[in-house]
This record gives sequence, structure tokens and C-alpha cells, in this order.
Amino acid sequence: MQRDKHIMSAFDRDLESIQAEVVRMGRLVETAITDATRALETSDEPLAEEVRRRDREIDQLEVQINESAARLIALRAPRATDLRLVLTVIKVASALERVGDYAKNMAKRTHLLAQMPTIPGAGLALRRMTEAVSALLRDALDSYVRRDATLAAEVRARDIEVDQMYNALFREFLTHMMEDPRNITACMHLHFIAKNVERMGDHATSIAEQVLYLVHGTLPEDPRPKSDSVAAVNLGGAD
Amino acid sequence: MQRDKHIMSAFDRDLESIQAEVVRMGRLVETAITDATRALETSDEPLAEEVRRRDREIDQLEVQINESAARLIALRAPRATDLRLVLTVIKVASALERVGDYAKNMAKRTHLLAQMPTIPGAGLALRRMTEAVSALLRDALDSYVRRDATLAAEVRARDIEVDQMYNALFREFLTHMMEDPRNITACMHLHFIAKNVERMGDHATSIAEQVLYLVHGTLPEDPRPKSDSVAAVNLGGAD
Repeated sequence: MQRDKHIMSAFDRDLESIQAEVVRMGRLVETAITDATRALETSDEPLAEEVRRRDREIDQLEVQINESAARLIALRAPRATDLRLVLTVIKVASALERVGDYAKNMAKRTHLLAQMPTIPGAGLALRRMTEAVSALLRDALDSYVRRDATLAAEVRARDIEVDQMYNALFREFLTHMMEDPRNITACMHLHFIAKNVERMGDHATSIAEQVLYLVHGTLPEDPRPKSDSVAAVNLGGAD
Repeated sequence: MQRDKHIMSAFDRDLESIQAEVVRMGRLVETAITDATRALETSDEPLAEEVRRRDREIDQLEVQINESAARLIALRAPRATDLRLVLTVIKVASALERVGDYAKNMAKRTHLLAQMPTIPGAGLALRRMTEAVSALLRDALDSYVRRDATLAAEVRARDIEVDQMYNALFREFLTHMMEDPRNITACMHLHFIAKNVERMGDHATSIAEQVLYLVHGTLPEDPRPKSDSVAAVNLGGAD
């Protein structure tokens, strides 16, 4: 899908510039995830506040990308594959905006959790999970920019690891709550965060699926590999 | 925005037929919410299974609407307002697909919760919450089809009631968990469901915001009224 720069059309140039905005949005979202996780782990409330503040920038970028995409369609009247490329930009930006929202929601709980009993191991487990999700998101965007169906398929397969991390954490939280009711409120909030991180992974997957759609022309037929077998659901599995 | 049928263009006809698909999708999603709630309240596992099965139909409709929208853009090359109308169809269908997913996830937990201790009042409180959300969604779609900015603004304002219902339920679940650790697992699952219902309300609001965008040309400037003040967050408030 990489076209020769020398024969790049006006459409290609416009699309590239919108894609550059998507990549910039992706970087902001990645930073939001990293910072929100660190803020939570170290009870760094100013950093959490910063994440919340910067989410407006991410939202603004989505609006801007949508407007650029609409302008591109209006101006160049793309057909077939080109049109699909533009519509995909809108989908990818929408997925990124949601991931940004989840990071913001994580940041929102920093102040609250700083005042509650620490749940041993939760900070580390959450950090590992967000690191896995960040890598997933980075690869999903990479596969998008390069139209790399192999990498996209790999992202889709790897999301199951995030689901498994979530399931393990869910069980841990249950144990802490049963052991000591004073842990209940903190665990409810941490569980929330874990669930939101798991959902970030779903959005990375949805970006990868858009890439597969661009390259192959159809969405994957097989249901996405998900850790939501009956066994997983019995453990409060991912959904 | 209602145009005279006699001077209806080919574009208008095509758009109307896609909007009819969106309305159909909306009805399926509403049924999914109602049935998932009833299945949960009455431990009706076959009905829950039916909701899960029918979610594929909703997903399929979204794909179909996206393809129709892309075809309409390619065929009629709409500009300005007309183009915005088509792009909005895609956003609305995407919101509906997510609401359908939440209903499916609710249905997934029916079997599980049927085997756990009943949490008094939870079924009724959840039903009231899903009824409020269904009404919100219906009005959001109505405001969309009629381009009724007044109704859309009202939907946006009413979402706060759903957030308040969620906050009240969150506190109730905490109490039940503290009182008896045997309630913990059931409350974790019920909390999940309540959160997903609250998110359905957010999607109804996002449809209403698209309507405001169509009518006024800009997204609402003021942050959406949300029950996420510090007080609400301290109670595990909506996000």
C-alpha cells in the first residue's frame, strides 16, 4: 500500500497528513496511559491532574481528524479503496479517543485510592497490564500506518494475553475482598481500572481489525480470540 | 431538515434508506436491553442465550450501514451538510453497536448470577436503570431522525439521572459486600452490569451530541453534565 512518493497524488498527500495527526494522537494516548499508571502507582496527584487536563487535547485532535477527513472526502471525492482509507481514519481516531478516556478515568481515581489501604501487588500487576496494552496499541498503530496485515493479525492474537492478565487480577481482588472487608472499596476501584485497561486492549484490537479490513477487504470472519469461554466467565472473565 | 418528499433527491432517498436501517438497529438494541434485563431478573437462561445470539444481527447491521454509507459517498459525492449527514450515520450506528454489546455482556452473566445469593433490591434497581436508559436511547434516536435539537439537548441533560442511579447502586453494593463477604462475588458482577448500563446512557448522549452537531454545526462547548464531581467520584462515581 506504500505508494511511490514521486507519483503521490493530492489525495495521498492529504491522507498522509491526516494519518500524521492520527500518529500524533496515538503518542498522546500512549503517554496518557503511562502517566496515569505511574500516577496511580506512586499516588502522584499532580501527574494525575495533568493526565485529565491533557485528555482535552486528545478529544480535540479527534474532532480535528474528523473534520480533515470530511474535508478530504468533499474535496477529492475518493472512490472505492481510497474512500475506505479515509473512513478508516475516522474509526481509528475514535478508538484512540476512547483509550484516552480510559486513561483519564484511571487518573481520576488516583486521589481516591491514595487514601485507601494498599492492595499488595495490585500496582505492579496493573503496570504490567498497561505496559502490555501500550505495546499492543503501538503495534496496532504501526500496522495501520504500514498496512501490515501480519502485524495486525498478531495484535489481534496477543490481546488474549491482556484478557488473561485481567482475569488473574479479578481473582486476586476477590481474594483480598473476602479476606478483609476493609479492602472492598479499594478493590472495587482497582477492579474498575483493570477492566478499563482490558478494554483499552479491545480498542487496540479494533484498530488491528480495521487494518485487516483495509488489506483484505473484509472484517475477520472468525470471532476474535477472547478469553470469554464459560470457564473465564465463571471467574468474571473478560467481556 | 425534513425535506419535501416531492423534491427529494436521489441522495435524500439513499440517506433515508440508510437511516431506516439505523432505526431498525435501534429497535433491535432496545429489545436486547429489555430482554437482557428480564433474563437477569428472572434467571431466564434461554432468553439470555437468545440475546447473545441476536447480537450478531446487530453487529451485521452496523457493517451493512457502514457499507451503505461508503457507497452513498462514492456514488453521490455529497458535500458540506450532506456529507456530514452521512458521516453521522456511521457514528450513530457505532454507538448502537456498543450498546448492543453491553446488553450481550449483561446476558452473559445471567447463568452465573443465577447460581449466586440474591442481592435484595438489585434486580428492581437495575430494571429501573435500564428502563431509563432505553427511554434515553429511544429519544436520542428520535431526535436524530427528526433533527430535533431540543429533544437532543434534553437527552443530554437527562443522562445525569442514570449516573445518579448508578452511584446509588454502587453504594448499595458496597454495603452488601461489607455486611456479608458471601455477597462479594455476586455484587462484583452486578456492579459490572450497572456500570455497563450507565455506559449505555453515555452512548445515548453521544448520539444526542451528534444531533446537536448536525443542527448547530459544532459539538456542545460545555462539558457534558455528568455526575462526576469529586463527591461522586468519592462514592465511586460515574466515569
